[in-house]
Formats: sequence, structure tokens, C-alpha cells
Amino acid sequence: MSQMPQNGAIACLAAIAVAIPLSTAAQSTDGFALATDGNGAINVPEIDYRGTWVQLGAFSVSRDKPQRGAKELHVTYAPADAVATYKLNGRFPDGTVLIKDVFAANTEQLSTGLASYAGKLNGRFVMIKNTEGRFADNPLWGDGWGWAFFEGAEMRKTVTKDYKKDCMPCHVPAKATDWLYVRGYPVLAD
Amino acid sequence: MSQMPQNGAIACLAAIAVAIPLSTAAQSTDGFALATDGNGAINVPEIDYRGTWVQLGAFSVSRDKPQRGAKELHVTYAPADAVATYKLNGRFPDGTVLIKDVFAANTEQLSTGLASYAGKLNGRFVMIKNTEGRFADNPLWGDGWGWAFFEGAEMRKTVTKDYKKDCMPCHVPAKATDWLYVRGYPVLAD
Repeated sequence: MSQMPQNGAIACLAAIAVAIPLSTAAQSTDGFALATDGNGAINVPEIDYRGTWVQLGAFSVSRDKPQRGAKELHVTYAPADAVATYKLNGRFPDGTVLIKDVFAANTEQLSTGLASYAGKLNGRFVMIKNTEGRFADNPLWGDGWGWAFFEGAEMRKTVTKDYKKDCMPCHVPAKATDWLYVRGYPVLAD
Repeated sequence: MSQMPQNGAIACLAAIAVAIPLSTAAQSTDGFALATDGNGAINVPEIDYRGTWVQLGAFSVSRDKPQRGAKELHVTYAPADAVATYKLNGRFPDGTVLIKDVFAANTEQLSTGLASYAGKLNGRFVMIKNTEGRFADNPLWGDGWGWAFFEGAEMRKTVTKDYKKDCMPCHVPAKATDWLYVRGYPVLAD
């Protein structure tokens, strides 16, 4: 074997090594490894989802006194390959993890008007698409998803006891779109 | 030359071909190619920035009657490598392109409160970091940036005539942070 092809093979391995970390960020099919312990307990993934996933959309929720601006900003993220699949067939694939940051809002009077933006992290809501009916006896799983809320910066211990009581009531208006507020996620329609 | 190394070389080219599009999304240093004609005219980049860039943050702007919710949602994106540089030294590098989607907001009364989310695209604001003082005679350039607003879905013809009159007044409250509302971009502090 001549020297040239060996160098080519080494360059090839280097190219593959560069390609792998770049593509990992886009994986969603390992969502059960990323966001569960394999037995149905749910966690916030230990990854830089804000820096590597796709932001689907932001919801601003008014204060009870709306003249004081927004109370919270809710920002949802999904892996890029799950977004690509959704654009093709209108469904998130099995294993898709969605993470919603719930930020307390800060508000200022600016030239454009009363403006509110993300401040302290109040908590995170994690959903995992489950088309196979896994964990049927676990009250965090059902209606095609795993559901769990985590307060503040907590990533392991959910405060959710029963998704039907704790999570679903707020998602009823989105039942027709698989319990997701896709009407606020313009990137899915791009 | 044996057959094996040739196959290796072909596999290598394939690996590089896969690697290039994945890494392109993260580039910011070619921002002048992406967002200008090379002579100072600014355009909205022809790329999937919502699907491949980092969402820095969202600002919700109240209606004049705030009990009707938000008027607009402003959502800003930057390339991942520019975000990484900012996290290291607190500055966006020369050539960084920032894109702000200005969405008209839709508002609904939901269980969590009066909630507003992105609807129709009203326009886009593009900024390009310019540490080298390029295009000094062009009224779209100055104070370390190129500045241009594009109405609706328009990507080429800006309505901005003079950044000092058209853009800067709204950015004065962010002067201390290089004219950017980084206080609403929590990902930069992660």
C-alpha cells in the first residue's frame, strides 16, 4: 500500500470524527435514553438544547394586570431531525423530546412599547413522544406522550404526579394537534 | 494502488460531503457573503436560520390596550459559532449576522392566562457585526454594525434609508451592550 491512500484514510477518519458531533445534536430517536431512565422516570436532558435544538416558538403569558406586561415567557425546543420529520408528515416521530423553558418575564417600557423578555427560569416542561404505548401503568405516560414538569433549575426530580391532572388540563385546547400548541410554532410550517 | 485505499478515498469524500453542510449552518465569519452584496447592500440571508441557528431570545411587545395581549413577538437568531464566541469573550465576532423575526401576535385566553404567540411575519431586522469600519459612507452602516429592516416576507429590498434615524432610536436603551438587547437573551449566559 502506498503512503498516499493511508493519508487519505486518516483524513477520512478525521472527517468522520468532525461529522459525528455535528450530527448528534439533531438526533431525536434516542429520546428515551436522553430523557428517561429506561423505566419511565423522566428527566431534563443533560444537553445544550438551547444552543443545538430548534426553537419552535415562544408564548408570552400576561400578568393578571396586563398593563404590567407578561408574567412568563414559554419557549419550546425540539431536535432538528424531529422538526424535519414533522415538516414531512405532520407528526413528531417516536422518541421526540420537547423541552419548554418557563421563564419569569422582565418588563420594560421601550420605544416600541411595553416589552417583556425572559428572566429567571421558573421551570421546564418535558414531553417525550411515545407511539408504542410504553410505561402504560406509569401516571407520567399516556395519550401518546410522557409528561413531566421540573421546577426552577431542577433536572431530575419532577413535581408531576399524574399527567392527567397536572399537565393535560392546560393542553386540552391543543388536543386536535396531538396536545401541542403547534399554532404558535411557525417553523413547523416553513 | 490497491482497490481498498481507493474505496477508502471515496468513502472519505462522501464523509466530507456530509460534514460540510452540517458545519455550514454554524458559520458566522462569512456573514458579509451571506447578508450583503459585498458593496454594503444588506439582504435577509437565504438560509433556514430558524431551523439551523440559535434562538437568542424572544421579546413580547404589548398592544396599546394590554388587556388584549401582545401586539408583536420579536425573535432573534444568531449562528451557533458566533454564540460560542460571545460566551467566551462577551463580543460577537466580525461578520456575525443577527436576524430578528417580527411576528404579529395572535392571542387566546388559555388556562395559564392570556397567551400570545407568533402569527403572520410582519418583517425582519438584520444586523451584521462590522468591527473593521467597512462601508463608512453608506447610511446603513455605522456604530459597529450594518442595520436594515425588511417588511413582510421581503428579503432583498430594505425600507431602511438611514440606520441612525430608522433603527438606532429603538436600540438606545441597549447601547451599553453594543446596541443589542442581550438582557433578554439567556442563552448567552448559559
